[in-house]
Amino acid sequence: MATVEELQSRIKSLEEELSRERASKSSNTVRHKIEKMSAEVVDSNPYSRLMALKRMGIVDNYERIRDFTVAVVGVGGVGSVTAEMLTRCGIGKLLLFDYDKVELANMNRLFFQPHQAGLSKVEAAERTLRDINPDVQFEVNNYNITTVENFQHFMDRICHGNLQGDGPADLILSCVDNFEARMAINTACNELNQNWIESGVSENAVSGHIQLVKPGETACFACAPPLVVAENIDEKTLKREGVCAASLPTTMGVVAGLLVQNTLKYLLEFGSVSYYLGYSAMTDFFPMMTMKPNPNCDDSFCRKRQQEFKEKEAAKPKEENVEEKVEEVLHETNEFGIELVSDPQEDESTSDVNPPSLPKGLQYAYDVPDPNKTDAAEEVGDTGESLEDLMAKMKSM
Amino acid sequence: MATVEELQSRIKSLEEELSRERASKSSNTVRHKIEKMSAEVVDSNPYSRLMALKRMGIVDNYERIRDFTVAVVGVGGVGSVTAEMLTRCGIGKLLLFDYDKVELANMNRLFFQPHQAGLSKVEAAERTLRDINPDVQFEVNNYNITTVENFQHFMDRICHGNLQGDGPADLILSCVDNFEARMAINTACNELNQNWIESGVSENAVSGHIQLVKPGETACFACAPPLVVAENIDEKTLKREGVCAASLPTTMGVVAGLLVQNTLKYLLEFGSVSYYLGYSAMTDFFPMMTMKPNPNCDDSFCRKRQQEFKEKEAAKPKEENVEEKVEEVLHETNEFGIELVSDPQEDESTSDVNPPSLPKGLQYAYDVPDPNKTDAAEEVGDTGESLEDLMAKMKSM
Repeated sequence: MATVEELQSRIKSLEEELSRERASKSSNTVRHKIEKMSAEVVDSNPYSRLMALKRMGIVDNYERIRDFTVAVVGVGGVGSVTAEMLTRCGIGKLLLFDYDKVELANMNRLFFQPHQAGLSKVEAAERTLRDINPDVQFEVNNYNITTVENFQHFMDRICHGNLQGDGPADLILSCVDNFEARMAINTACNELNQNWIESGVSENAVSGHIQLVKPGETACFACAPPLVVAENIDEKTLKREGVCAASLPTTMGVVAGLLVQNTLKYLLEFGSVSYYLGYSAMTDFFPMMTMKPNPNCDDSFCRKRQQEFKEKEAAKPKEENVEEKVEEVLHETNEFGIELVSDPQEDESTSDVNPPSLPKGLQYAYDVPDPNKTDAAEEVGDTGESLEDLMAKMKSM
Repeated sequence: MATVEELQSRIKSLEEELSRERASKSSNTVRHKIEKMSAEVVDSNPYSRLMALKRMGIVDNYERIRDFTVAVVGVGGVGSVTAEMLTRCGIGKLLLFDYDKVELANMNRLFFQPHQAGLSKVEAAERTLRDINPDVQFEVNNYNITTVENFQHFMDRICHGNLQGDGPADLILSCVDNFEARMAINTACNELNQNWIESGVSENAVSGHIQLVKPGETACFACAPPLVVAENIDEKTLKREGVCAASLPTTMGVVAGLLVQNTLKYLLEFGSVSYYLGYSAMTDFFPMMTMKPNPNCDDSFCRKRQQEFKEKEAAKPKEENVEEKVEEVLHETNEFGIELVSDPQEDESTSDVNPPSLPKGLQYAYDVPDPNKTDAAEEVGDTGESLEDLMAKMKSM
């Protein structure tokens, strides 16, 4: 049997080992909470380069960022980077929604690391993001928003999930990878009259887009077939049944960057917010456009918001008539986008004819069915595919 | 004094604590080395979504990525994300150059985390990147490339730093934040006849660019004043003496994404590689152009490469005459860029007149001195500033 001395020596050595083990963790700098954003230029201030946007004349009041709540739906290749950018920018509160787990197969995209494999994406994201910036409030929801019960909870959180818990989020960002989830967000936002930005990356990994939806003011996700960036790549090689989709950290990083940049412009009111911005990686081509909502949209709340928007515009004094405003925004957009890459006979991109013909480089995800034909299974356009086939295709978007 | 039983109980509890402490570290998944890139679609394969680029018809032979060596000079807001994207894509070898330390003031950009504060950027980057993908070979150089001694070492590593240690890197990416370092890279690459891509983000954080330099074939960094994206922002608010530059994770993420995307296109030979691609965040405007080298460039190696390039082109059989090739590339570029945003009288962007007038949205960082005037201190153009003032300005780029 061991002597008391031997036991004491063993205790001492164990205590030392434990202390070394703990030191290897705690010796690291921890980012503590910061009460008030400061512009002070010191190495220890994580906000100095952001507050400098004020001195540079870009943003009037950067610290307002802390008042805003943004929901990020889908914390995958685009959503995780989106959440990280907003966290580093010092957003007030983030609501994260996802039901997936981190896998090694996700390691070709930014953000998640191998040691997080097996954790839920929202949980893993929250841990990393809290270490990066503990000033941000996080709320994670580890579920699929498309089931009936979860959808109700999702609506509730968007409605009441702001910083004070008594009002709606300021903006919803869709970073999901499938049609049903996008449609669920669209349905919720039309009903709640909530602005949101949709984002997406193609299955072949070389194009993507963002699209701002203001219910009643711009086309919603149900107004027309989703817009995608044309790639001029042999269609036969695409969308094969059961093929694992490709993805690149580059394309997803660019789309997340454009998404959060437009989110910052929208929240902090600087620059011009893009309505539709595409990215084709093969040619570094960035098509832009704006589209009015479809008066015959299937979504009744979309039609209701359109009516409200018309009434609101009609009630405005003439000098701030919106026609001029829209014209102005369009001119800005067209100067660098649509007008230049297409050869429009007229300003079709904003006509009430839905779906309008598109500027060069953009196409609908599928052809639009003729509204006079009632048989949904009938062949559509000249693709020789039934609407059912097309909808099935969309599900893998 | 404690009894033997008490001591033994204490030992047991210490052993348990130590084991818990260690378990919290080692329970995490570790990404082990992978001998051969596989396209197998399983959750545990970090390359499945990249190898899918082959099935999607985008890249012929994705696994070639492992043969390439890329040098990333500057591991800050753009360079760190660039290195992470290349690591996740499975690049063969990365040479990293930086001499800075991680600070909390860097936390508004992606990649570095608060617990890394105080570490050198290259060391911190290597640790994180090795965990993400141990298949990549890393070489870190923790020094300033602009001193005479380090510059020689830098030249040597670019020349002999490939995977086998017997040949040059395949591409150099400039992610530095100052004029001297860019000029050092330019000097080295002209001498070594090494292609490189320059990148940059403006001091006000809302614009950036990438520019491919092929010595003798496209303009080098010394051929003309650096090109920057015009922002139409009140100049008086910009470039104040001693003002801390602003930065945003969004702009830096987009620039890194465009940089690595073009790197992948260049190395793996898909799509078209952009020569100059700008990004203006305020309007989501992406100007493009190509510029021929200046026959009167100050850099003698640039003039030598121009001569060699001319001779090589002249020696080619007529059917693959390069004039046609250049035309073709330009047409592609112009379709989405220059021609459309400018109103050129002729194809000035590729004329031998240097510096040519620029497409709309681009401008030189300073006015070009009249070559007939020899007094360097003389006033330049209509800015009322001396060349010395202008060069001083450039140093803070």
